[in-house]
Amino acid sequence: MSSQFTIIGNYISPYVRKVLACMELKGLDYQIDPITPFIGDDRFTQLSPLRRIPVLIEGDLVLNDSSVICQYLEDRFAEPSLYPADAADRAKARWVEEYCDTHLASVLVWKLFYQKVVRRHVFQEEPDEAMMTHAREVEIPAALDYLESCAPADGFLFGALSIADISIASYFRTASFVRYVIDAERWPRMAALVARVQGLPSFQKLARLEESVLRVPLAEQRDVLIAAGAPLTAETMATLTPRKGTSRFA
Amino acid sequence: MSSQFTIIGNYISPYVRKVLACMELKGLDYQIDPITPFIGDDRFTQLSPLRRIPVLIEGDLVLNDSSVICQYLEDRFAEPSLYPADAADRAKARWVEEYCDTHLASVLVWKLFYQKVVRRHVFQEEPDEAMMTHAREVEIPAALDYLESCAPADGFLFGALSIADISIASYFRTASFVRYVIDAERWPRMAALVARVQGLPSFQKLARLEESVLRVPLAEQRDVLIAAGAPLTAETMATLTPRKGTSRFA
Repeated sequence: MSSQFTIIGNYISPYVRKVLACMELKGLDYQIDPITPFIGDDRFTQLSPLRRIPVLIEGDLVLNDSSVICQYLEDRFAEPSLYPADAADRAKARWVEEYCDTHLASVLVWKLFYQKVVRRHVFQEEPDEAMMTHAREVEIPAALDYLESCAPADGFLFGALSIADISIASYFRTASFVRYVIDAERWPRMAALVARVQGLPSFQKLARLEESVLRVPLAEQRDVLIAAGAPLTAETMATLTPRKGTSRFA
Repeated sequence: MSSQFTIIGNYISPYVRKVLACMELKGLDYQIDPITPFIGDDRFTQLSPLRRIPVLIEGDLVLNDSSVICQYLEDRFAEPSLYPADAADRAKARWVEEYCDTHLASVLVWKLFYQKVVRRHVFQEEPDEAMMTHAREVEIPAALDYLESCAPADGFLFGALSIADISIASYFRTASFVRYVIDAERWPRMAALVARVQGLPSFQKLARLEESVLRVPLAEQRDVLIAAGAPLTAETMATLTPRKGTSRFA
């Protein structure tokens, strides 16, 4: 039995998490091929010209880029809406998403998580300690200062939960895999906002699957995910030879 | 007399061009403060946390990111629509825009134009010749191969003109400033598409202003633009000390 949607993308990726969170919140049925682009085969390159995840497949339609996919799901399934109704707020929410996809991803994922996890465990290279220290001490605090200035005392950034909150929570979730925790004394609104979003049932459901594979070698992840009840595709595009030279893994 | 919209951003930037083309096509009135982020003062940092252009200002509303701004203009001023009506086509058009904003910009603007023009003329540094050669010989051809596979024999990518065509034409326009021309024998559809879009009256109007400042020192650009009839703001945020360390100039 096949679902309407197939997602290619690993549970560890914050870009994939954004899409899966939207699908969970909108109650959509999907199956997932949980690869990382490092190990995707040539069929993956055909579907994702920049070898990035996530990819959404719906019949003949193949879509790349988490922001494009989330907006498509909103266009197709309006309820519950994950974009503010007011045009100006909607634009501001999309800006927060863009800020997260590029800048927050750069400092939390590429300069911290990627260094510590992917370089070490996928490519057997030493992480760049100076880059990680600069991210922790300078760049992440500066990003949190900015986001704290946008964050509400309670609730979500634009009233109801939106793509802005989902994006912020997704990136800090991947950072938590390398034990990055927001200092609640210094950034109380951000710490509370991220905890609020990550506490939602949709994020909690994904969190259980993320935790099941977090310290499991790539070759064993499918079996572990099946045991954990993840909706896996029957086949995978993953080959087990890591392939370097992709600009981004997600 | 002030316009409804102010744009902060230089005519040379492809990101700014995307927004200005949308405003021209929708017949919107605007004024422009034609700075580059290298020379923006601290007020600019307040309006653009990542010190990128373009910025759109409309009363109290301040928006960053060309894709966010273009979608906002579409949400506010539906006619003429610059996004396909069909949800799947709309998503594919947004993907082409994203591909241009990140990958095409990387190879055409950062690895070619920035090296040749900005490094040399703003920062008095030598360009990275190896990077430029690799972009010209490997990366730009690969991007053109991909885009050629999406491009139509005539007309535009998704029937009527859309953000996808506008994006492609905007990046190749900035590349043309360093004399990059698409080889029409190798990529006939792309060469014709770019020529078709750049030939539109809105692009032609912008092209005249672009040409007026192309070889003019930053300090003299405002006077030249006023003489050329550009709708400049009364004041500028530009200071004439270049400031390094921004991740992107546009």
